[in-house]
Amino acid sequence: MRVEYLERVRERKPLIHCITNYVTVNDVANVVLAAGASPIMADDPGEVEEITARCDGLCVNIGTLKAANVESMCRAGKRANALNHAVVLDPVGAGVSTLRAESARRILSEVRFTAIRGNLSEFRALFDETGDSRGVDAAFEDRMDGGISDALIDFAKRCARKSGAVCAITGATDLVTDGETAFLIRNGHEMMGKITGSGCQLSALVCAYLAVSPEDPLGAAAAAVCHMGLAGEIAADRMGRFDGNASYRNYLIDAVYCMTAEMLQKGARCERR
Amino acid sequence: MRVEYLERVRERKPLIHCITNYVTVNDVANVVLAAGASPIMADDPGEVEEITARCDGLCVNIGTLKAANVESMCRAGKRANALNHAVVLDPVGAGVSTLRAESARRILSEVRFTAIRGNLSEFRALFDETGDSRGVDAAFEDRMDGGISDALIDFAKRCARKSGAVCAITGATDLVTDGETAFLIRNGHEMMGKITGSGCQLSALVCAYLAVSPEDPLGAAAAAVCHMGLAGEIAADRMGRFDGNASYRNYLIDAVYCMTAEMLQKGARCERR
Amino acid sequence: MRVEYLERVRERKPLIHCITNYVTVNDVANVVLAAGASPIMADDPGEVEEITARCDGLCVNIGTLKAANVESMCRAGKRANALNHAVVLDPVGAGVSTLRAESARRILSEVRFTAIRGNLSEFRALFDETGDSRGVDAAFEDRMDGGISDALIDFAKRCARKSGAVCAITGATDLVTDGETAFLIRNGHEMMGKITGSGCQLSALVCAYLAVSPEDPLGAAAAAVCHMGLAGEIAADRMGRFDGNASYRNYLIDAVYCMTAEMLQKGARCERR
Repeated sequence: MRVEYLERVRERKPLIHCITNYVTVNDVANVVLAAGASPIMADDPGEVEEITARCDGLCVNIGTLKAANVESMCRAGKRANALNHAVVLDPVGAGVSTLRAESARRILSEVRFTAIRGNLSEFRALFDETGDSRGVDAAFEDRMDGGISDALIDFAKRCARKSGAVCAITGATDLVTDGETAFLIRNGHEMMGKITGSGCQLSALVCAYLAVSPEDPLGAAAAAVCHMGLAGEIAADRMGRFDGNASYRNYLIDAVYCMTAEMLQKGARCERR
Repeated sequence: MRVEYLERVRERKPLIHCITNYVTVNDVANVVLAAGASPIMADDPGEVEEITARCDGLCVNIGTLKAANVESMCRAGKRANALNHAVVLDPVGAGVSTLRAESARRILSEVRFTAIRGNLSEFRALFDETGDSRGVDAAFEDRMDGGISDALIDFAKRCARKSGAVCAITGATDLVTDGETAFLIRNGHEMMGKITGSGCQLSALVCAYLAVSPEDPLGAAAAAVCHMGLAGEIAADRMGRFDGNASYRNYLIDAVYCMTAEMLQKGARCERR
Repeated sequence: MRVEYLERVRERKPLIHCITNYVTVNDVANVVLAAGASPIMADDPGEVEEITARCDGLCVNIGTLKAANVESMCRAGKRANALNHAVVLDPVGAGVSTLRAESARRILSEVRFTAIRGNLSEFRALFDETGDSRGVDAAFEDRMDGGISDALIDFAKRCARKSGAVCAITGATDLVTDGETAFLIRNGHEMMGKITGSGCQLSALVCAYLAVSPEDPLGAAAAAVCHMGLAGEIAADRMGRFDGNASYRNYLIDAVYCMTAEMLQKGARCERR
């Protein structure tokens, strides 16, 4: 795991354009700042191309999707592609709504993504065409005990080859692959599931890492996933007797902010597979 | 007051669909998680029916109302009604804008609510047809000193009978009624009025409780009101010398998270009237 | 610097209507409450005039601008003008998007502002017609080392005379002027740039101060800038070993909440120029 990417984010302070949901947008902006990058939130179709052209990366998140925003996402994505910017998709809820699944598929067909970050059900909604529900259940079981089956790794690699993007399927164990190499990452804490937005935050963090590491998107995405997961562990260690998920939310972003390359080197649990 | 409803929320983890304002949406999502339930925020008319069908409850909140969202609220509400889901209305600002009052009335005419949670002026905007402003002033005076007049209890019961919903009129003293029985709840702390969104949070919490207690909406709503009010007291006890309303906001959600049935049993100040 | 304006905000509790971005809206609402005022967020064109008529001040912020919201901003602004309410513009990102710059110019042409609060690049996008980029660079250099050149003061005064508004150009050193007198304010802390929204918060705080001090908009705006900057210093002093920008965000609003006239009198570093 290449911790120097963290230092690069801090040095180069990439500007990240986020077209994102209104639930977690403030946390996303603050986590981008915590990493040492800068956020710009903008979604009107009349300005997204101009805004994204001034940035180093684009993070598209379909939580609380408005049908009208899909156009903005495609416009910004195409411009970012033309400029060779890092582009990340977070297909929030693609597994629970036809609008989101179809919108995500349209965006995927028009925009070339550097990385896609989501959970297993979101990836399945976008890439699983077998309709084999036994396979699905098995894959979910795998996830539940923190293990990762070969079938799941194969699925992730297929997603990556099909989309041409680094795919980060996050859960108890995170899986990051470019279709050839896969990293299994065992950082993180269950408290991350007790707050809204840890996934959205991670997607924006991945974008910040990718923006400064165009030569190694797989390594950069894996490092970002370790950064967030380790921050989740550090935040959990800080929990006091009266603390709940609201304090955890703050501790998590604080830990992203306080993370050093040395801490990340020591704490990352990242296995090449 | 039936504290087992809290335990049921924690065990059954109901999924709550929120169509809510963009001011307090993050806090609402986190308070739903703090209670042990799960939130989904979605408001596009193209997905709200599908989303709500996957959930156990629907919470409709008209703060920062967009005229276009009323259609989403009605569609989701009707589907939730057809599926017998718990449905909660928070008529934020119905007393300060004609758009909101009329929208709330339209939604009320199309959707059957399990509960309505608001403050007195919001309920008056929706249900008071007397136009007797002396009555109004008197009712407000009642509220100011924490007392509740018989006239106010009668008004609340009329709201409940007219709407068919459990009505929770919250203020210094909270009043929860199904039109027959009324509970007066004396939990809470004035700091709750120094942050934005404690009302929005409560409405979503009521929805989580109702989703697991269809046989007793009155008791479930009263328990949720006690839960939030007691959390407000615990949060106030935690305030340190340099803390202000931002820390209080975190402590409040933390206290919702840390609340046990035992604490709630002991701390609830709920009088049947 | 007139600290009694802070006490007036606390006594009169002005109601502030905010048409603002969805990134920092929750923080803006909480900072208005922290100051002792009350916020109402509303942006639908169907209700903004009615809402603003019930308020004491209007704060218009073009972050995450939707083209459709410009109409709401103009309608609300005109009504607020007719009622002689305090009206503040925060031209977020006017320097990075044509949509925002043009929208801000349209709003400026239709609405009379009591104050405008932004950074130098935002003011330049709206008021600099020279196109003299050497001047620009020089002005930016000035800002970098915390100093303020005479050229920058002249530019700020021209902005104020042209707009008829008190102009607050904030940065390492803040500059507040009505076109005649200028205040240089050296409060603040670099951590304020590590969170999203400290500028948005300040604009709303300025509005709360202006709403209670119509006889002295320059003095009121300067006092609000000192209040926020000093809060930023107090928040920084509170930072512990594991704290990052998320905790800082809370400490900042807490410090606005805990600020007294005495603390402000003692801590304000405000020089008349």
